[in-house]
Amino acid sequence: SKYSIAFSIFAGGNILLVLSSAILCAIFAPAAAGSGIPEVKAYLNGIDAPNILAPTTFIVKVLGSIGAVAGGLAVGKEGPLVHTGSCIASLLSQGGSKRYGLTWQWLRYFKNDRDRRDLVTCGAAAGVSAAFRAPVGGVLFALEEAASWWRSSLLWRAFFTSAIVAVTLRVALSSCKGDNCGVFGTGGLIMFDMGVISTETGLLELVPVIILGTSGGLLGAFYTFLSGKVLKTYANWHAKYGLFGKLFQAFLVALITSVLIFGLPWLGACTACPTGITHECPSNGLSGKYKQFTCQSGYYNDLASLLLNTNDNVIRNLFSTNTEGLYHYSSLAILLCSSFFLALITYGTAIPSGLFIPVIIIGAAYGRLVGWFVRSTTQLQTFDEGIYAYLGAASLLGGSMRMTVSVCVILLELTNNLLTLPPTMLVLLISKTLGDLFNHSVYDQILHIKGLPFLVEKPEPYMKHLTVMDVCSSPPMTLSAIERLGNIVEVLKSTDHNGFPVLEHSSEVPKLHGLILRSHLLVLLQKRESDYNSADFAKPGSGKSRRIEDIQLQTEQMNEYVDLRPYTNASPYTVVDNMSLAKAFSMFRQLGLRHLCVVSTTPKASPISGILTRHDFMPEHVLGLYPHLRANKWNRLHTKSSVSDVFVS
Amino acid sequence: SKYSIAFSIFAGGNILLVLSSAILCAIFAPAAAGSGIPEVKAYLNGIDAPNILAPTTFIVKVLGSIGAVAGGLAVGKEGPLVHTGSCIASLLSQGGSKRYGLTWQWLRYFKNDRDRRDLVTCGAAAGVSAAFRAPVGGVLFALEEAASWWRSSLLWRAFFTSAIVAVTLRVALSSCKGDNCGVFGTGGLIMFDMGVISTETGLLELVPVIILGTSGGLLGAFYTFLSGKVLKTYANWHAKYGLFGKLFQAFLVALITSVLIFGLPWLGACTACPTGITHECPSNGLSGKYKQFTCQSGYYNDLASLLLNTNDNVIRNLFSTNTEGLYHYSSLAILLCSSFFLALITYGTAIPSGLFIPVIIIGAAYGRLVGWFVRSTTQLQTFDEGIYAYLGAASLLGGSMRMTVSVCVILLELTNNLLTLPPTMLVLLISKTLGDLFNHSVYDQILHIKGLPFLVEKPEPYMKHLTVMDVCSSPPMTLSAIERLGNIVEVLKSTDHNGFPVLEHSSEVPKLHGLILRSHLLVLLQKRESDYNSADFAKPGSGKSRRIEDIQLQTEQMNEYVDLRPYTNASPYTVVDNMSLAKAFSMFRQLGLRHLCVVSTTPKASPISGILTRHDFMPEHVLGLYPHLRANKWNRLHTKSSVSDVFVS
Repeated sequence: SKYSIAFSIFAGGNILLVLSSAILCAIFAPAAAGSGIPEVKAYLNGIDAPNILAPTTFIVKVLGSIGAVAGGLAVGKEGPLVHTGSCIASLLSQGGSKRYGLTWQWLRYFKNDRDRRDLVTCGAAAGVSAAFRAPVGGVLFALEEAASWWRSSLLWRAFFTSAIVAVTLRVALSSCKGDNCGVFGTGGLIMFDMGVISTETGLLELVPVIILGTSGGLLGAFYTFLSGKVLKTYANWHAKYGLFGKLFQAFLVALITSVLIFGLPWLGACTACPTGITHECPSNGLSGKYKQFTCQSGYYNDLASLLLNTNDNVIRNLFSTNTEGLYHYSSLAILLCSSFFLALITYGTAIPSGLFIPVIIIGAAYGRLVGWFVRSTTQLQTFDEGIYAYLGAASLLGGSMRMTVSVCVILLELTNNLLTLPPTMLVLLISKTLGDLFNHSVYDQILHIKGLPFLVEKPEPYMKHLTVMDVCSSPPMTLSAIERLGNIVEVLKSTDHNGFPVLEHSSEVPKLHGLILRSHLLVLLQKRESDYNSADFAKPGSGKSRRIEDIQLQTEQMNEYVDLRPYTNASPYTVVDNMSLAKAFSMFRQLGLRHLCVVSTTPKASPISGILTRHDFMPEHVLGLYPHLRANKWNRLHTKSSVSDVFVS
Repeated sequence: SKYSIAFSIFAGGNILLVLSSAILCAIFAPAAAGSGIPEVKAYLNGIDAPNILAPTTFIVKVLGSIGAVAGGLAVGKEGPLVHTGSCIASLLSQGGSKRYGLTWQWLRYFKNDRDRRDLVTCGAAAGVSAAFRAPVGGVLFALEEAASWWRSSLLWRAFFTSAIVAVTLRVALSSCKGDNCGVFGTGGLIMFDMGVISTETGLLELVPVIILGTSGGLLGAFYTFLSGKVLKTYANWHAKYGLFGKLFQAFLVALITSVLIFGLPWLGACTACPTGITHECPSNGLSGKYKQFTCQSGYYNDLASLLLNTNDNVIRNLFSTNTEGLYHYSSLAILLCSSFFLALITYGTAIPSGLFIPVIIIGAAYGRLVGWFVRSTTQLQTFDEGIYAYLGAASLLGGSMRMTVSVCVILLELTNNLLTLPPTMLVLLISKTLGDLFNHSVYDQILHIKGLPFLVEKPEPYMKHLTVMDVCSSPPMTLSAIERLGNIVEVLKSTDHNGFPVLEHSSEVPKLHGLILRSHLLVLLQKRESDYNSADFAKPGSGKSRRIEDIQLQTEQMNEYVDLRPYTNASPYTVVDNMSLAKAFSMFRQLGLRHLCVVSTTPKASPISGILTRHDFMPEHVLGLYPHLRANKWNRLHTKSSVSDVFVS
């Protein structure tokens, strides 16, 4: 019949779009899969993972995200846009591409880690600003979730970026009236405008707010837990079946999604169009609040409006106010279950997929259900069903992503609903607090599953009971102030450390001159000139670092000597060897270090006892060395202040 | 006549209110004068100035602020509320008052500097939240302007506080309909609601935005400059004439203010009330958009509506939309000049006085003037005059206070005007950038004039050319690991340093054991027991520190010995003596230190070369030692990256 033809076209199109996205992603840039926010967060924490922000990742992310969103999957474009913004920032910070002769002189100012990180933070801010049309929310997202180090100059830079995004968006939207630019113009600067709502309420309103906050926190923690399980299973499958596994999985997800969003609306009933409404009813186009689907003229299928629609329109429909009973509770329940299921199976496939939109849909569906329940069983009629949906979305965002201020402002900018700010804040408070009792945020969990060595903000409590020497590996390999090139090559080949202490042997006891970086040694080996300028030592673009294997030296060159002192950092950060690990952790984290030298308080043969790197502070490493501390992990709530605390802090 | 009687009552009442506020302030708590925001900022930067957050300051701030605002002065209640919030937080963090038997056990968790600072930051957030009814703006203000160190847990705590404020406000407002609670209920949760405004605009709107931003930046810098001059003059007066000078000055300011706001409206013309308006016209009460003043029935005096009104109502009137020509340009010009003059002469008198409200009034007056000018001379009719006033206020806030995100969100929450966000951001961008070219923000300037040793975020560029030993004073006084009490008393009396290196003389070269604090030495001297618990070493409440003069020891006690090692911080932060001052500055600032030990790379007689404290990093100190670097201060724009930069950073 005509419906099976329609389904074939619908499902075929979807599968085609999703598969092309998956092919791009799996073959050219595996780093482009997923949301991208955890990866950006890791980069901003100081993790230099290859390809996170590479040009191919950028291109695949843009194209793949188009395929995934257009293919009807339960994914958003927000995470990918954050990643895209960061990629563009990273490309800019490399000063263009030397290979294609596109270099800009003024961009050389970004040739250091800190400015590059700042630029990437601004890119993330621009991504959120553009995705949600929420410029202030973008700044706050970048600072609260993405960045690991805050400075007021960074705030200022992110604000600058977002202001430019806001003005650009506004100018672009003013030339995109109606359907001029597809769905871009819909809603204008405020994507899900909720209009003017009466909120004459009293103390009793706190009851539904607390209900929503509590259940949002629980549901969010549950979602995070399940999503972690799914991610691990998927990662195992990908390792086992390779490219074919990834593509087949993407195909399956696309098929299941198409079947559900085309099949489930058959369960919905046809309702007569209400009178006196401004929206088209029934509608058949891309969008619409009252979808006709299989109903006769003058009737609409509410389940089709919620499922067979763009994600943005689903949210708009759920948030719509003064529409009590527009969506039957069974339709909402079906939407809730199907979107929860689809969100779970989709994230982890080899396509760019944002988490914001699915979480908002699940939360809004569930909030509207709660609203229907409260309004139909109790006397609490103060909140509109749309407000319930809105608060439900807030609660699930708080319960899964554990952000506060940024979610608050993003939602405000999405819906222009300032009067609901106090209940929104309360809902976020409750849901985040509850969620944090069970597990980490969904992004932190992805970071953990991907094995990225993310340095959290606070040291673990058991670190107070260890000193730095307890976790520091054996004495580091050292170099002499005037060193044979052959020795340097040998040292570099025998280890993958990135920093080497330089010792001076002029007096009877050797003296620590400073720390030299692997990358600078490689430059010295490669150029072997007497004169260098700062550009030689500038950090190369991401994924383009020099390697010792690429350097070939002749035997006579091997016997040359080089004075390392001019290229050594003569004042490295040092700590004494009896410092507590927790204190050293705070120093390492707050100063954003890569190497921290441990020196002895008592004179010894070697002036340096060890070098601490990020790896040494990872809980996995520490607990691997001292498994009996593992139980201590749960003592955080019970730690008591003792005399030693006063002196250590 | 009746007008002179009215004026006498008006001026008399104002002078009485202001004088009682000034008496309280000058006699009981001089620290309560002024805005309080710079002081809170200084405290959060680590400056332990006495009485900033003391109980008397708190009480005087509350009462004095009521007197100053009710006395009709050009001051706001926002700064004082921030200070009040911080005072309450500080009192809480001391765990109540021991003297009155009010102690709470659970509050002992705040007995360390960091948690106390966090609590005070939350207090500042609560102050802004309550003052502007802007909970998210409060969080951002606390983070952007008040706090010196950001952590995500601090964000979370500030958010928690603000959410509680928001819910409390909402509940309080829902029982304060109309005039139930005086002016508190006016406006509800949104103080200056601008209503729904059409903002169908294009690229051309950028022209007025740029004009407003530029002039706001210039005017803000000019205001900051003049205000600095006035503050210095006032400080000299206060030093010269003492209490009488302060009171006379307050009297004068109150008198001038009363004369101006009662006298200037006589210059205004009487206009016939417009038809078809919802506001009362003419009105005679406390508030009103159309004040009758001396006009006959059916007529109103627009200048009286702008001057003889509460500050909040003036702002409400200036921001009101769809009221083109309501205020004549001459009235706006008079308002601009008088409020600029009054704001300048008021800040610096011995009363609690916030800066936000006067700045908003000046900015709005000036913005509306620009709006009148643009609309009457050009074809640019896109913005309403109310929007001009709003953007003018934003530009002057940006140009004088140099905040970005927080001003943006506060204004948004004040006016519920989301669609104007992009131009607001642009205006703030331009005005802050321009203002920063001329001078520091008005709060930073007050900090500087008060001589508070505020540590800025970035080292000055000339600090790159100095090493830590260049600024470090002579070798510090040291103590032995096992020390005679008499020696300790002598050392403590001879210097006011707060940290002392403890040396061990067991081997032939003395070895640095660690650093002991003056406060801990005082506890040891006072108690002289063999056993201590952590509560003994807890920091006492503000303004209650122990002093060496209060400790009396007998001669035989003087000859007792004490082992200092258990009370010594055995792993102090150290830097090598050839580290650049800029690098040490960053470490000192980012870790929030009070002492930083300088150790030598080459073995010397003393294991410690010096101790760096906050004082050593102050530009005044450094430039005092090396006056030739002063010129370098202006080289910031011309610094070029060199080979050394790459290695140092």
